[in-house]
Amino acid sequence: MSETLGFIGLGNMGEAIAANLIQAGYALKVYNRTASKAEPLVAKGATEVKNPADVASPGGIVLTMVADDRAIEEIADAQGSFVERLGAGGIHVSFSTISPATASCLSINHARHKVAYVAAPVFGRPDAAAARKLWVCTSGPAAAKQRIRPVLEAISQGIFDFGEEPAAANIVKVCGNFMIASAIEALAEALTLAEKNGLARRDVAEFFGKTVFSCGLYQNYGKTIAEQKFEPAGFRLRLGMKDVDLAVQTAAASSMPMPFASLLHDRFVTSVARGRGNWDWTGIAVNSSEDAGLQ
Amino acid sequence: MSETLGFIGLGNMGEAIAANLIQAGYALKVYNRTASKAEPLVAKGATEVKNPADVASPGGIVLTMVADDRAIEEIADAQGSFVERLGAGGIHVSFSTISPATASCLSINHARHKVAYVAAPVFGRPDAAAARKLWVCTSGPAAAKQRIRPVLEAISQGIFDFGEEPAAANIVKVCGNFMIASAIEALAEALTLAEKNGLARRDVAEFFGKTVFSCGLYQNYGKTIAEQKFEPAGFRLRLGMKDVDLAVQTAAASSMPMPFASLLHDRFVTSVARGRGNWDWTGIAVNSSEDAGLQ
Amino acid sequence: MSETLGFIGLGNMGEAIAANLIQAGYALKVYNRTASKAEPLVAKGATEVKNPADVASPGGIVLTMVADDRAIEEIADAQGSFVERLGAGGIHVSFSTISPATASCLSINHARHKVAYVAAPVFGRPDAAAARKLWVCTSGPAAAKQRIRPVLEAISQGIFDFGEEPAAANIVKVCGNFMIASAIEALAEALTLAEKNGLARRDVAEFFGKTVFSCGLYQNYGKTIAEQKFEPAGFRLRLGMKDVDLAVQTAAASSMPMPFASLLHDRFVTSVARGRGNWDWTGIAVNSSEDAGLQ
Amino acid sequence: MSETLGFIGLGNMGEAIAANLIQAGYALKVYNRTASKAEPLVAKGATEVKNPADVASPGGIVLTMVADDRAIEEIADAQGSFVERLGAGGIHVSFSTISPATASCLSINHARHKVAYVAAPVFGRPDAAAARKLWVCTSGPAAAKQRIRPVLEAISQGIFDFGEEPAAANIVKVCGNFMIASAIEALAEALTLAEKNGLARRDVAEFFGKTVFSCGLYQNYGKTIAEQKFEPAGFRLRLGMKDVDLAVQTAAASSMPMPFASLLHDRFVTSVARGRGNWDWTGIAVNSSEDAGLQ
Repeated sequence: MSETLGFIGLGNMGEAIAANLIQAGYALKVYNRTASKAEPLVAKGATEVKNPADVASPGGIVLTMVADDRAIEEIADAQGSFVERLGAGGIHVSFSTISPATASCLSINHARHKVAYVAAPVFGRPDAAAARKLWVCTSGPAAAKQRIRPVLEAISQGIFDFGEEPAAANIVKVCGNFMIASAIEALAEALTLAEKNGLARRDVAEFFGKTVFSCGLYQNYGKTIAEQKFEPAGFRLRLGMKDVDLAVQTAAASSMPMPFASLLHDRFVTSVARGRGNWDWTGIAVNSSEDAGLQ
Repeated sequence: MSETLGFIGLGNMGEAIAANLIQAGYALKVYNRTASKAEPLVAKGATEVKNPADVASPGGIVLTMVADDRAIEEIADAQGSFVERLGAGGIHVSFSTISPATASCLSINHARHKVAYVAAPVFGRPDAAAARKLWVCTSGPAAAKQRIRPVLEAISQGIFDFGEEPAAANIVKVCGNFMIASAIEALAEALTLAEKNGLARRDVAEFFGKTVFSCGLYQNYGKTIAEQKFEPAGFRLRLGMKDVDLAVQTAAASSMPMPFASLLHDRFVTSVARGRGNWDWTGIAVNSSEDAGLQ
Repeated sequence: MSETLGFIGLGNMGEAIAANLIQAGYALKVYNRTASKAEPLVAKGATEVKNPADVASPGGIVLTMVADDRAIEEIADAQGSFVERLGAGGIHVSFSTISPATASCLSINHARHKVAYVAAPVFGRPDAAAARKLWVCTSGPAAAKQRIRPVLEAISQGIFDFGEEPAAANIVKVCGNFMIASAIEALAEALTLAEKNGLARRDVAEFFGKTVFSCGLYQNYGKTIAEQKFEPAGFRLRLGMKDVDLAVQTAAASSMPMPFASLLHDRFVTSVARGRGNWDWTGIAVNSSEDAGLQ
Repeated sequence: MSETLGFIGLGNMGEAIAANLIQAGYALKVYNRTASKAEPLVAKGATEVKNPADVASPGGIVLTMVADDRAIEEIADAQGSFVERLGAGGIHVSFSTISPATASCLSINHARHKVAYVAAPVFGRPDAAAARKLWVCTSGPAAAKQRIRPVLEAISQGIFDFGEEPAAANIVKVCGNFMIASAIEALAEALTLAEKNGLARRDVAEFFGKTVFSCGLYQNYGKTIAEQKFEPAGFRLRLGMKDVDLAVQTAAASSMPMPFASLLHDRFVTSVARGRGNWDWTGIAVNSSEDAGLQ
């Protein structure tokens, strides 16, 4: 009864979101560069296609969750792309964390094919995605957003709209990941200070999670940083670096400095230089311990 | 029925705490350098004394909430001080945010007079103090902490103990205020980035307060920083600078850098240099706006 | 008798260099986007051409001094470009400060046309260029460097070679401009500290220029920063920002942080945000004064 | 014929200075906490005394070169100190790098005994001291400075006066050591960037020493940082940290941030935390290599 959706990008996040759409009754055509990733969804009823453009039906909806700006540009701007296939009345819902500048370019290019571009970056890690606990920020044409609302409701616990400007939701996403990275660094420095003064890292993290910072983010990240267990990654450090760099670059393009972001950039680069690019991004906390002579 | 308590330091926080103690049935002897501050408490039944030492009874309990290290040293280490007056079996409960090093010194000096020093720094602003919504961190001798437990319960919504080491609770307090200042700076940079890109500061702050950062701190501070209304001060910027500097100094004494704290130090110093020392400490957010050419 | 050289890019630096080549007896074909800039050189005997490709003769030498990576890519990589016109045996001497990555790409593209790419970034401001006091760093194919040696000698006081790797000289240039910007910031902070403590900025700058930092750079920049006279620009702040950003980006691409460069990035961005992009790049010193409440 | 001078503090610098005074014909009474350090000077004719106060003669001159603020306070402010012994007409020439605040206090205390306090911090490492190549900054009462001029000429290649304000010369010294530390960090980042891109550290350092930064400081420090040979120390890292912290603290007391100094503070603290406090202060360069994953 529900319409058929196209879905491109089946990493940890993409797969969990797609599974919830199937669960909600949508028919799905899915594509992933590494085909084997599609298997669990095919087992649940999705149809796998061999070419990203094949997920699209004229006037339909395609959802994408890919790694970065270049990945989305490659599949969206190519000749014969899913955008062309969508054509008039089609909607592209872009979940990826990309630069606001790229979002604006995509929007303009889509308009040439009469396709609406809706930015819909999400907050939440893979377990939250699986539990339909994501938060979605949206921006783009109002009519398109109204049509996709049931789709977003099927995968999230809340939808927050930021208007029609295509890049707006991406700005919010960039702000959010920057703020999370700042919280990671603050926790890292604080827990190192506590440890250097004879306190148990975990006690201090738990105290803050129960009191001043009583939200899941500080509770979960505080626990990870206290225990210093950074593998396996929930969100890879290398991708976290990309997001912090989006903040630095978006800020520079907006003529403003972001000193915390500049410092976080340095933390992430050091972490990658020391071979930790595939750790969880909370792993930048190791820098504080090393600088303190602890490791 | 309850015993008589001594109380020194009736600023915004001290007065609210003292009022709750009266409310809970304690008799109070109070002292403040500026005597007029004692009036509201005297109206509620407290006895005002002219000399800080006079708040103490032999073997009793004295609570202090003063501005900084120097203030507590002046009244605690002087000849004929309230500590001497307390003598054997006495307890000094120190609410102030002071350096761990000073806490350790005080503890040793108190021991000479057989007085127990209990560090009990609190988290919460004056309105939280008035509403008995403070969180208290404690460290010090176990027996003394047990005896003062009802006193702390009368002013707080939770007590968290960090052992017998006198400075431990102060370390936690220093960590906490550093983390709060980091959250302020992160919010300031993020909301400036949002504003520079055409988003409404308040929308973005509200989004984060409802989702990723759903705790009172981000909600309240986010609102203040979004609206850029930094007067009157809930917690003065000049005092916030003192607390961030405690982090930098405690870190240096522990042989570790705290790069976020170093950067925050620079933010606070700039704010004071530009005449904002009496603003609320969220006012460091103005630096981000100014650096972006917005003000 | 000397061969005819092509020259593209007649800004302050390019014009001074080109004039010295004419003075040294070279025939010059010159091109500049804004044609009027060619007039003084035409008056000295240069031939102006209407198309950048027209400066080149088969197997000849073309020298370029343009603003940034994009500018050089536009004229060098276009179809029918001067590189194609040079063809086998031709040499492109690139004076511009560009990214090492772009230098490597250019070198590869040139090789397809059998043209040697020689990176030859220079140190020195327009007055030094006019006085033949530039220092040149070179990298590229040995034979090409040997052939252009007399050309470089005609415009400089010294040539330093860094091997055959095309990007090597650009790395040195990026390092150098980063170090100069660091000296500017250090001078700015030091002279502000002196001023805040009642000393005369100029006395302190002169002292260091005569003693510990007795080189032209500290003497000249120290004087400018002491006197806070940042217009007209010798080297525009906006271009200085580009160069510091080259350091940050090259460092990130090399997996290493450069914390001083990150901080300088913030200084430059703030300066541009506050409307000082066309000042001399020593003008980032104003940030120190402003942060100190002096302006 | 020359008068007898008192000299306290015979570390590397003090001993070299004292030896030059003997060489110039002065009789010297010397004191050092570790008595054995006096032996080489006694062999050259100095008289060793057992108590610091014994170096002073009524109305005479005492020179001090000690480690830090506390060291000078302990010997100058004690009862029966050399200052009291000097009495009316006496002069204390203080070579040490101390805080401007301490210099002001000393000056006031000296005045009670009618002793003139002359701040005379020096620039130069022990080999420069031995070669009479120091630069001296002075501040203090004019008459006293005139009387000690021959003494300073005997140990230096230049004397620069900064007026009568006692702390002025110390401000200059603090500025200078901050600027030198900034040059060290800039060299470290630049040479690491060069190394990561395949260039020889030494080639790059030599280039800058011969061209843009053609002064002894960049030449010598550039060589050390290129070769990464940080032991034995010419100037110990731990003392360099003290000097950078003097900059941070003096700046804070003057209501201004010094972001480069804050960052240098972090570099020094990390170095000490990792066990390098006794290396030469150029050893903070190792942080750049480590952050780049090179060591």
